[in-house]
Amino acid sequence: MKNFLGVLGGMGPLATADFLAKLVHNTPASIDQEHVPVLLYGDCTTPDRTAAVTGTGPSPIDKLLAGVRFLNEAGVGAICIPCNSSHCWYDEMAAASGVRLFHIVKASVEQVRVKKTDARLVGVLSTYGTHQMGIYRNTLNDMGFEVLSPSEEEFSTLVSPGIALIKANRLPEAEQVFAKAASLLVGRGAEVIILGCTEIPLGMREQCKANPSLFVDSSEALALSITEFFGRPQAGH
Amino acid sequence: MKNFLGVLGGMGPLATADFLAKLVHNTPASIDQEHVPVLLYGDCTTPDRTAAVTGTGPSPIDKLLAGVRFLNEAGVGAICIPCNSSHCWYDEMAAASGVRLFHIVKASVEQVRVKKTDARLVGVLSTYGTHQMGIYRNTLNDMGFEVLSPSEEEFSTLVSPGIALIKANRLPEAEQVFAKAASLLVGRGAEVIILGCTEIPLGMREQCKANPSLFVDSSEALALSITEFFGRPQAGH
Repeated sequence: MKNFLGVLGGMGPLATADFLAKLVHNTPASIDQEHVPVLLYGDCTTPDRTAAVTGTGPSPIDKLLAGVRFLNEAGVGAICIPCNSSHCWYDEMAAASGVRLFHIVKASVEQVRVKKTDARLVGVLSTYGTHQMGIYRNTLNDMGFEVLSPSEEEFSTLVSPGIALIKANRLPEAEQVFAKAASLLVGRGAEVIILGCTEIPLGMREQCKANPSLFVDSSEALALSITEFFGRPQAGH
Repeated sequence: MKNFLGVLGGMGPLATADFLAKLVHNTPASIDQEHVPVLLYGDCTTPDRTAAVTGTGPSPIDKLLAGVRFLNEAGVGAICIPCNSSHCWYDEMAAASGVRLFHIVKASVEQVRVKKTDARLVGVLSTYGTHQMGIYRNTLNDMGFEVLSPSEEEFSTLVSPGIALIKANRLPEAEQVFAKAASLLVGRGAEVIILGCTEIPLGMREQCKANPSLFVDSSEALALSITEFFGRPQAGH
């Protein structure tokens, strides 16, 4: 199964389906057989990542490692995880994997320059867990970007409730919430905004359509890095 | 992994992503952990089903059985296949499976009465392979329905090219083609039309939104039968 992409998904399940659609849309193929075969391990019972980071829930690490091991044992050629918050445990997962583990944060940050070559101020919309762990902030700072995040109040009144609305399938309500959260970041000078949670693009479809150059969709960025990888000869995985 | 739904997918990959989204949308859940865990074996290199039925390409049976065996060995609780044409090999797959194999045709036909209780004339849009094998026609006839299918010419000028457009990611063009194919069936008296190919709903989003009571989406019908199954105690599956 070396030609299969392993997907550690289900976090959440709608974001996983959306990621798979983006993988198809970004693959230069005209028939089924030219696409990337996928083995998805989608255990949506994995404990909430933000709750674990903030110390209000159990750690997801056992479930994450179970998925990584399953995909490795099945023999996939590489693994991706269409969930930003779970990348708080990236190092542990990478250590347990014999094959390449794509990094959604690195893939997303690479797309900032593609969207706006001279951007300096980058906004990030993410779960509170991703924000707390600083995985976007650190990576962006290392590359010389200045980072704008929602305030604590914006997280508790807009971003976190918005993500919960998406997980509850209430997408039109989420659109309004995220429109507000994004406009606050733009008001503070954000030139590009990374949607650093794979649920968020589902609640920002209208805005992404209206202003595609403003937003980096982490789910799409991950798909792009994969189609590039699977388009190349896979020597040494 | 008894709580996992096994999905034999990749036929095609966009239809699989669409099915997974419909599974989420039709599951009464408000958080990730209440959804159905999924193990997807998505081998999009499976040979084209219609080409096999019409004798112009190799059989997909080896790949189909490899997927069914993989999912069984992994220990899933049940298996579904969001591809109508592959149900031409349903009996062989069911014989190779120790767990329940959902039948997309039966799930779809069950939805006809839900859409229109007194329907008698049912149109079916499907691949030419599904049409040739008569899997919808036989099931519908057995239940007392009369079946309307596209003519040979409509298959070669509308339905088959429309499915190819979807597989090539050209959805707006497909919409026009399927609008024509559906209106021809309605003109002949179809009271309900089954979209008996999981790619077709992707190329009929506008029409399904405009006239939801006319169409049975086989992908959604399959999702509905699964959420019903996973909502019940699974003794003896």
